[in-house]
Amino acid sequence: MVPVPGPSRIAVEDVWPVVDDGRVPIQRVPGDTVEVFATVFAEGSNGVRASVRWQRLGRREWERLPMEPLGNDRWRGEFPVPDPGEYRYEVEGWVDPYLSWRSLLDRRVAAGSVTPLDLEEGAEILRSLATRLRGPAAEKLRARAAAMRPAAGAELAQAVQLARDPAPDAILATAPPRVGVGRSAAALRVSVGPPHAQHSAWYELFPRSTSPDPTRPGTFRDLRARLAYIADLGFDVVYLPPIHPIGRSHRRGPNNTLPAPPNAPGSPWAIGAAEGGHTAIHPELGDIEEFRATLSEAKRLGLMVALDLAFQCSPDHPWVREHPNWFHHLPDGSIRPAENPPKKYDDIYPIDFSTDDAPALWKALKEVVDFWVAEGVRWFRVDNPHTKPFDFWHWLIAEVRREHPDVLFLAEAFTRPTVMYHLAKVGFTHSYTYFAWRTSKPELEEYFRELSSGTVGETFRPHLWPNTPDILTVQFQSGQRSVFLHRLVLAATLASHYGIYGPAYELLEHAPLEPGHEEYRDSEKFEVRHWVLDDPKSLAPQVRQVNRIRKEHPALRSGRRPVFHSIDNGALIAFSRRTADRSDVLLVVVNLDPGSVQSGWTALDLRELGVPDGALFEVHDLLSGEVYRWHGARNFVRLDPARWPAHILQVVRPGSVPSAPPGAG
Amino acid sequence: MVPVPGPSRIAVEDVWPVVDDGRVPIQRVPGDTVEVFATVFAEGSNGVRASVRWQRLGRREWERLPMEPLGNDRWRGEFPVPDPGEYRYEVEGWVDPYLSWRSLLDRRVAAGSVTPLDLEEGAEILRSLATRLRGPAAEKLRARAAAMRPAAGAELAQAVQLARDPAPDAILATAPPRVGVGRSAAALRVSVGPPHAQHSAWYELFPRSTSPDPTRPGTFRDLRARLAYIADLGFDVVYLPPIHPIGRSHRRGPNNTLPAPPNAPGSPWAIGAAEGGHTAIHPELGDIEEFRATLSEAKRLGLMVALDLAFQCSPDHPWVREHPNWFHHLPDGSIRPAENPPKKYDDIYPIDFSTDDAPALWKALKEVVDFWVAEGVRWFRVDNPHTKPFDFWHWLIAEVRREHPDVLFLAEAFTRPTVMYHLAKVGFTHSYTYFAWRTSKPELEEYFRELSSGTVGETFRPHLWPNTPDILTVQFQSGQRSVFLHRLVLAATLASHYGIYGPAYELLEHAPLEPGHEEYRDSEKFEVRHWVLDDPKSLAPQVRQVNRIRKEHPALRSGRRPVFHSIDNGALIAFSRRTADRSDVLLVVVNLDPGSVQSGWTALDLRELGVPDGALFEVHDLLSGEVYRWHGARNFVRLDPARWPAHILQVVRPGSVPSAPPGAG
Repeated sequence: MVPVPGPSRIAVEDVWPVVDDGRVPIQRVPGDTVEVFATVFAEGSNGVRASVRWQRLGRREWERLPMEPLGNDRWRGEFPVPDPGEYRYEVEGWVDPYLSWRSLLDRRVAAGSVTPLDLEEGAEILRSLATRLRGPAAEKLRARAAAMRPAAGAELAQAVQLARDPAPDAILATAPPRVGVGRSAAALRVSVGPPHAQHSAWYELFPRSTSPDPTRPGTFRDLRARLAYIADLGFDVVYLPPIHPIGRSHRRGPNNTLPAPPNAPGSPWAIGAAEGGHTAIHPELGDIEEFRATLSEAKRLGLMVALDLAFQCSPDHPWVREHPNWFHHLPDGSIRPAENPPKKYDDIYPIDFSTDDAPALWKALKEVVDFWVAEGVRWFRVDNPHTKPFDFWHWLIAEVRREHPDVLFLAEAFTRPTVMYHLAKVGFTHSYTYFAWRTSKPELEEYFRELSSGTVGETFRPHLWPNTPDILTVQFQSGQRSVFLHRLVLAATLASHYGIYGPAYELLEHAPLEPGHEEYRDSEKFEVRHWVLDDPKSLAPQVRQVNRIRKEHPALRSGRRPVFHSIDNGALIAFSRRTADRSDVLLVVVNLDPGSVQSGWTALDLRELGVPDGALFEVHDLLSGEVYRWHGARNFVRLDPARWPAHILQVVRPGSVPSAPPGAG
Repeated sequence: MVPVPGPSRIAVEDVWPVVDDGRVPIQRVPGDTVEVFATVFAEGSNGVRASVRWQRLGRREWERLPMEPLGNDRWRGEFPVPDPGEYRYEVEGWVDPYLSWRSLLDRRVAAGSVTPLDLEEGAEILRSLATRLRGPAAEKLRARAAAMRPAAGAELAQAVQLARDPAPDAILATAPPRVGVGRSAAALRVSVGPPHAQHSAWYELFPRSTSPDPTRPGTFRDLRARLAYIADLGFDVVYLPPIHPIGRSHRRGPNNTLPAPPNAPGSPWAIGAAEGGHTAIHPELGDIEEFRATLSEAKRLGLMVALDLAFQCSPDHPWVREHPNWFHHLPDGSIRPAENPPKKYDDIYPIDFSTDDAPALWKALKEVVDFWVAEGVRWFRVDNPHTKPFDFWHWLIAEVRREHPDVLFLAEAFTRPTVMYHLAKVGFTHSYTYFAWRTSKPELEEYFRELSSGTVGETFRPHLWPNTPDILTVQFQSGQRSVFLHRLVLAATLASHYGIYGPAYELLEHAPLEPGHEEYRDSEKFEVRHWVLDDPKSLAPQVRQVNRIRKEHPALRSGRRPVFHSIDNGALIAFSRRTADRSDVLLVVVNLDPGSVQSGWTALDLRELGVPDGALFEVHDLLSGEVYRWHGARNFVRLDPARWPAHILQVVRPGSVPSAPPGAG
C-alpha cells in the first residue's frame, strides 16, 4: 500500500470553494466575505464542531470562526477578506465531548431516564475541558459544572435545565479546548485583488479618431480633451487600442484592402516600425510626455487608462531584425506570418513562444509590461491570449502582480470554454465573454448560469462588451435604437464589468462591411474617423443614466452573480443582483424584442429578493422614475421598446428605505 | 502570492476517476480495466496528444497507452490491472507539432492554398521529431519526410495525400518524441483486491442451531455436516455470528427478555466470559481443533468462512478485569454500558477507543484479527464499525492488509450516508447497504444510482442482504413466497455481493417479535433453533438456481453496476448487468407486486445491451427456460408472482452464441 497520511478521527470532506484541489486560488476583492462549506463528521453520534480558520499571507497568526451545521453533516462558515493580497483557509472539525454528552442527555430527558449520575458525568466533562483553558473561560466552565451537580433529588430538574442551556457553547465553539482536530486536506487559497478589480465600466476609443479637425488625425492632446466627455458619461476606464508605431510592410488600407493607399494609417495591431516597438509611441499621437499628460488628465477626472497588450509584430518591428529567432522560420528562411486559411496576414508575424531563446523573449515581453506599469498603467487588455502558451501567462502575470498587485489583465479570448476558463486559472483577472452572441432569453440564461456556477464562478470574472471594433453582431445591423439600449442595459447589469466601443456605440454606428458580416464598414481599425458627438440621436444621456445607476447601486458592483427569475413571456428576461446583506436589491427586466411592446407576469424568487412571502412591496424603476406597488411573486410587467426596453427596478421592502434615491432620468 | 508550481504549457484537468484528490484509492479486482477520462488541451489550435501512464507499485517502470479524443478537449483511455496490489496512474498531454501542422494543412487543402513550402515545413518537423527517436521508428519518420517533399509541382497532390495519411500517428502517439509534457497534478491510486473481492454469495447461520438432535445445541461438528447443504445451494461464503464465550452478567433470555432462564444460551454478541474473549471459542461449539476442522471442510467444499468482528465486551470479558481503562467509567466508578435511551444494554460494555491507553488497546484489537487470520480466515464481517473511530479502522485495516492483502472487511454499518461512504474510504472493502428497506421501484432505482455514481461508485462495494438476524422487514411479514423470491433475485442480481440469513430465509421464516417490528420472534440471537431443512415449501431449489446463474454469468460478477431501463408499469423494475465487452449481458425484470400478475412494455437502452437499433434479438429466461424473440426497445413483459416473480433474461444478439446455456430450472 502507498503510505499516505491516515485520516483523523474527524472527516473533513468536500470543502467548497475549491479550484483544482487548492492549486488555483479563488478570486475576491477587498471587503468580500468568503462563504465556506464542508462536510464534517465523526463516528457514531458524537457531538461535532467545525470552524473555518484563515490566514492573510505573510502574517503569522491564523484567525478562526465557528461554522454552523446545515444538517446531513454539512457545515457553513464565512470569513472576511478586508485587504488585497493572498489568504489561505482550512476547515477544522473536532469532537466536543460535552456536546456529545448533552445530546445523549436530551434523549435521556425525552425518555425520562435521567439520573443524578448522568449530570455528574456532564459536570466532569466540563471540568476536564476547563483544564485546557485559562482565565474567565475556564472559570465559567467550572462554575457551570459546579451548578450542574444536583445536591438532592428535588433539584434534578433544575440541574437538567441548567445542563441543557447552550451558554457554554460560545466558549466550546471558539476557544480551544479541542483535541483530535481534523483538518481539510489542503490549505485553500484566495486571491484578493485591488478594489478596481471588483467593478468597472470601460470606454474603448481610437485616439487617432479624436481630432476636432477633420483634416488631421487625432493626438494624445485631442484625446485629453475627449476625456471629460467620457468621464461625464460615467465610465471608469478608457481603453486605448495599441498606441505604438505601425508597420508599413503589407499595410492594410481602408476596409482591410490591399494595397493600401500611401496615406493609409494602418492597423494599430500591426505593431512596430522603424520608430520602435511595444514600448514606443506612434509619433502622430505624441511622445511619452504627451502620454503622461494624458494619464494625469485621466486621473484628475477619475478615469484609469487601459492599454492593449498585443504580443505580435509587424515585419518592421525592431525585434524582427534584432531577434529573428523569436519568430518561426519556414524552410526557405522566411518568417511564417499569421495565418487563418485561406487568409495569410503578412502584415503580422506571430511570436514563437517555443523558441530556443525563450528566456530572453519572455524577459523582453515582461519588460514591455514593466515599462507601462512604471508609467502608471494598471489595466491591460490582452489581445488573443489563447494563442500564447499558458505557462507564459502564468509566469508573466504572477511576476508582474507580485511586484504590483494592483495590475489587472483582461483576456480578450474568444475560443473554446476549456481554454477561456483556464486562462482565468493561470492568472488573468478578467475576461471577455460570448455575451455579444448570446441574444435570446434561453441563451442568456444558460450562459450566465454557466459563468456563475462551480469553479468558473470562483475564478472567471466576466467582462461584457455589446460591441468592439471587431464585433458588430447582426442584431445591431438594423440600427434599431432599442437594440442598442437593451444590450447596453444587459451588459451594464448582468456583470460588474462591462464596456462599450465608442463613439460607435452611442452614435448607433451599425453598417457592416457586408450584410451579415461582423466587421464594421469603414472600420476605425484601418482608417481615421471623425465623430459628431452632439448628434441628437446619440445615446449619451442613456449611457450616462445607466452608468450613474451602476455607481449608485452596490448591487451592480457586487461579486454576486445574477439570479434569473421566471417570467411567462419568452421575449422578456428578468434577473436580480444584490449585495450580500440584501441592503441593495435590483430586479432587471429587459424586452429582447426590439419591434414590439411585450408584457408578462413574473414568478419571482422572493427569498432571493428578500421579500417576505405574500408581502406588499415597491419597485422603483431607476430608468423611468416610475414606482410600482407589487405583491408576492406574480406581478405584471409591460415594456415598450419605443421608450425604455428595460426596467432596472430597485426592490424596496416593506418598512425599508431605498439605499439611494431612484435615479429618474 | 503563494509560490506554487506553475502550470505547464499543457492543461491536464478534471481527471476521472479520482477520490479526495487522489488521497483515497479507487477499488478494482484483478482483471479489471480502469477507464480514465481527462480534459487535456494547449493554447490555440495546437495538435495535442494524451496518454495514460500507470505503474504497479513496487515496480520501477511505468507503462503507457494513448488516449482517444472525445471532443471538447475531453479524452478517454484505459489500462489493465491484472494483479492484486496497488497501482498508480497519471494522465499526460503534450503538443505534437506534426499534428498541429497537419491540421493546418487540412485547412489549407480545404482552402486550396497548399504550397510546396508547406510540405517542406511538415517534412522538417518530422525530421526534427525523428532526431529524438532511435531505430525503426526514427527511420519511418525520416522516410515519410523524404517522400513528402514534392520534386515538382505535378507531384504536389501526391505529396499532400501522403502527408495527410495518419500512419505516423502510431509512432507519435506512443513512442516518446514528446516535449513539454504536462501531467495531472497527483498520481492517483487504484487498490486491486484479491479475486474474492469481486463477487460472493453469503450464507449466514448460527452454528448452535445446526444440531440434528432437538435436545442439544449444535456444535462445529454439526456445522461441518451442514456445509455440504450450503455448498450445494451455491454459496461461496459461510458467515458465522460471534463464536466466542458468551457473558453471563445480565444475560438475555428468549426474545430479549430479562431475567434469562438458567439455561438461556445468551446473545453471541455479548462477547467474553471466564473461558476467554475475542480469541477464545465457546466451549459448547468445540475447541480450536474443531474450528480448524470446520475451516478445512469448508475449503474442501469451495466455501470460505467469514467471522464476526464485534469490538465490544460482556461484563465478564477478561479485558474488563485486566484492562479496566479500556472502558469508560462513570463518576461513581462503574463502567458505562451501551445505551440507546431509554434502553441501556448492561450486558454489553462499549470499548473506549479514546482511552489514554489507546496504543495498547489498538494493538490488542489487531491481535484479535491477526489470530483469526493466522487460522486462515480471510473475510471479516465487522459489527457496527460506524460507532468506532475512523482513524482506528484506517490503521487496523491497512496494517492487516499490508501483511495479508487477501483479507477483506465487510462493514455492517447502517447510519448516515456520509459515514457509510467514509468507512469505504478508510479501508472497508465491502459494506452492508439500505437495500433491505428499498422496496419500491423509485426507491430501488434512486438508491442504486446513488451507489453506482461518482466517488461512491469507485470506492463503496455494496453487499446486499434481504434479511439478517436483526432485520425482518415488514414486507416479509405476510410470509408471501413471491416476496422472498423477488427479494432473492434483486439481492443476487443488483450487486456482485449478496447474502441471506438462513435457514430462516429459504424456510420463509417471517413471524416478527411484534407486528410491524423488524425483530424475528424467537430470534436465534437469544435461543437455539432447530430447523427442518427438507420442508417442502423450502426455497432451496430456487436459491440454488439463482446462485447457479450467478456462477455461470460473468455479467453478475462484474464490477459494472446495474443500468436501469424504462418499463411502463410502476410494479415492474428492469435493469441490466454486463461484462465490459458485452460478451455477457443480462436483463433482469422483477414484479415487485407479490399479489398480482403485472405486465408492461419496456423502453430498453439498446446501446447498453449491445443490440443494434431495430435488430431482432432473443432473450433467454434463465429462470423459466423460456425463449422470447424481441425487436427493438419496446417489448412486452408479463410476470406472474404465483410462478417466478422475475425474469433473468440473457440477451442473445443476432448471430451471437450465448456464453452459457440457459439455466432452465
